[in-house]
Amino acid sequence: MTQQFPPFLIEGYRNFMSGRYATESQRYRKLADEGQKPTTMVIACCDSRAAPETIFDAGPGQLFVLRNVANLVPPFGPDAAYHGTSSAIEFAIIHLKVENIVVMGHGRCGGIAGALATAAGHAPEGAFIGKWLTMIEEVAGKVEANSLLTSSEQQTALERIVIRQSIGNLMTFPFVKERVEAGALSLHGAWFDISSGELWTMNGESGDFMRPEL
Amino acid sequence: MTQQFPPFLIEGYRNFMSGRYATESQRYRKLADEGQKPTTMVIACCDSRAAPETIFDAGPGQLFVLRNVANLVPPFGPDAAYHGTSSAIEFAIIHLKVENIVVMGHGRCGGIAGALATAAGHAPEGAFIGKWLTMIEEVAGKVEANSLLTSSEQQTALERIVIRQSIGNLMTFPFVKERVEAGALSLHGAWFDISSGELWTMNGESGDFMRPEL
Amino acid sequence: MTQQFPPFLIEGYRNFMSGRYATESQRYRKLADEGQKPTTMVIACCDSRAAPETIFDAGPGQLFVLRNVANLVPPFGPDAAYHGTSSAIEFAIIHLKVENIVVMGHGRCGGIAGALATAAGHAPEGAFIGKWLTMIEEVAGKVEANSLLTSSEQQTALERIVIRQSIGNLMTFPFVKERVEAGALSLHGAWFDISSGELWTMNGESGDFMRPEL
Amino acid sequence: MTQQFPPFLIEGYRNFMSGRYATESQRYRKLADEGQKPTTMVIACCDSRAAPETIFDAGPGQLFVLRNVANLVPPFGPDAAYHGTSSAIEFAIIHLKVENIVVMGHGRCGGIAGALATAAGHAPEGAFIGKWLTMIEEVAGKVEANSLLTSSEQQTALERIVIRQSIGNLMTFPFVKERVEAGALSLHGAWFDISSGELWTMNGESGDFMRPEL
Repeated sequence: MTQQFPPFLIEGYRNFMSGRYATESQRYRKLADEGQKPTTMVIACCDSRAAPETIFDAGPGQLFVLRNVANLVPPFGPDAAYHGTSSAIEFAIIHLKVENIVVMGHGRCGGIAGALATAAGHAPEGAFIGKWLTMIEEVAGKVEANSLLTSSEQQTALERIVIRQSIGNLMTFPFVKERVEAGALSLHGAWFDISSGELWTMNGESGDFMRPEL
Repeated sequence: MTQQFPPFLIEGYRNFMSGRYATESQRYRKLADEGQKPTTMVIACCDSRAAPETIFDAGPGQLFVLRNVANLVPPFGPDAAYHGTSSAIEFAIIHLKVENIVVMGHGRCGGIAGALATAAGHAPEGAFIGKWLTMIEEVAGKVEANSLLTSSEQQTALERIVIRQSIGNLMTFPFVKERVEAGALSLHGAWFDISSGELWTMNGESGDFMRPEL
Repeated sequence: MTQQFPPFLIEGYRNFMSGRYATESQRYRKLADEGQKPTTMVIACCDSRAAPETIFDAGPGQLFVLRNVANLVPPFGPDAAYHGTSSAIEFAIIHLKVENIVVMGHGRCGGIAGALATAAGHAPEGAFIGKWLTMIEEVAGKVEANSLLTSSEQQTALERIVIRQSIGNLMTFPFVKERVEAGALSLHGAWFDISSGELWTMNGESGDFMRPEL
Repeated sequence: MTQQFPPFLIEGYRNFMSGRYATESQRYRKLADEGQKPTTMVIACCDSRAAPETIFDAGPGQLFVLRNVANLVPPFGPDAAYHGTSSAIEFAIIHLKVENIVVMGHGRCGGIAGALATAAGHAPEGAFIGKWLTMIEEVAGKVEANSLLTSSEQQTALERIVIRQSIGNLMTFPFVKERVEAGALSLHGAWFDISSGELWTMNGESGDFMRPEL
């Protein structure tokens, strides 16, 4: 633990200070004094290629962001265990009173690939990740069983199915359901194609993913 | 759920496409083809004012990012429950073979404030968040009991103590400890001051936070 | 006692005469003729790295400066003993009618370190200094007992607590309290970071130290 | 206590940061890392017109400075009371191992004037200052009784007598006497004329004050 702080991070921080921070110092100071008031929570993947702030060109104070492997939302189930994802959702809804929750998946997701591999009998190494992916093992099994789809098509299909499942699970949280029904909160899906840079947004009625009008 | 996708996100995405993506499309294409190979995992808070990619001016492929409330790492404890944080750590270490893990906290953290409020007898609303913060209730209680510190000083002290605790908990993961001892992985702490934009990095020996030479 | 006057002081004095004095001789002459009328008293530490005139770039006549080990103000307690600090405060208030008193502490203070060492069972050598530091032994003991803080964090915390204590003790002097309540005198805290050169000023309401807008 | 920090101090600090600190930041950083190692202690008056760092053009780390009213050193007398001056002397000798102690007085000293006024039956207001000046009441009485001297000559005479008395009292401290006799410490006197800017240094043999060769 006596290692030097990674130099590329110090270099990047220097760019931040001379760049974004230099031009937005008043905004940071205001956000510090008045507290954060983001209107939107994003539930995204840890993947290094799909940072929400980058894809949505978001500035400080705009997005409250929960990131876990494969952007999964477990079903509502308070018990004696720690629930990092549910805690963040609760905090965003009850304390920050966000108006939007966006579940954002992406192409080439390692977690999704792991779930398909598990369904095919080749579970990735790791006890935690194995247990974590059981949340989507049922849908992964169904997709993997469909041999009409290429493996690449299976991957994209499961990525989108998982976004729909996460949104469905969000509705099992009483405090989410209540606010959605009262019109105070809306739930959205998005899928990012790392290769082409394309963003696809989900139609809330049909669950289809389409490229939005720009 | 038939709401329009938040227009400010579409607007931001449009900026991304004409800006960063336009100049880095080759990099995105390469990252899609070859897969992500980040050298560094960042464990950060969901706070909208402290996105790691922004603070470290990081591009696509650089940072594998787990974000939860108050950047907490639970102690190693595989069981029947879902472990989002532990899963991401396991994925980063075993599958991505990252060389650095940075636990980044920040000033004015709502989760830390909640832990101090709980210690003072005013627990914030919410069952999940309440349970989640029990991970730091012992240290929060000790800090809150020190009435010589102002409430703001208690907050900063606990933010830094929690970073040290998260790093300590990382070392309870056998696959982390083994790699750290083999020199293949190093653990770092960082604390970001939202108001001033200052980054403080942790000295691995003493645990102190200091401003790095820029 | 027949030693030569330290040559570096003669050299420095020569610089003073050809520099500051040469350009400000009228000011010195006026200050000699009319007497001093400083608006501000500074209570600071003897430390060679934290001279108030240097840090505040103050010219002749501006600051009435009391310096002792660790910038301590004892509680009001007139008795048969000599009270150097209380005498200076009394002189500044009653005779000079200063409008501000600034208690200025600093990082890496040897007196504060001595108080923490004493609390840890390693009192520094010296009967006078030992007795002097009993003024802060209670707060030093509380800070030292908090093992969640690194020793460097304990040091900074105690430095700031001691500034607050000194200001609190100032208010036990009837002639201070009366003038503060009448709006004729204000009390301030400041903390100087030797390493970075940063000045932090105390918020009179909360007691927090913050970097002032420059 | 909710007053604004005195603006002229913030302004002065800004000058310090853009001036001295900007050109000496390495020195400050080094002094912070390695600790202070001043070779010289100065015992001076609180007077706003006679700051040692200014008169000796001293930089950070050079002078360990005790300032009280009229630069008095009480005779050695450890007891149950707080001794700010003796503590600073002890700290300088035992912990910092300084090689020189300079007692610096100055013209138009308010404390010296107060002692002469007391001897003439017009004691200045203030219980602490009254007690403090009893340290020099005997010599003040003798000077005041000499009606052959003008009041201005009495003032200068007492200022210099008090410097000699302070140096004499220093020699009553066993740890001072021992080091002086061992050649490890030397004691010096100096007197600063505020009006003309002249520095007079004391001859250790005769006690006379003379202007040094520049």
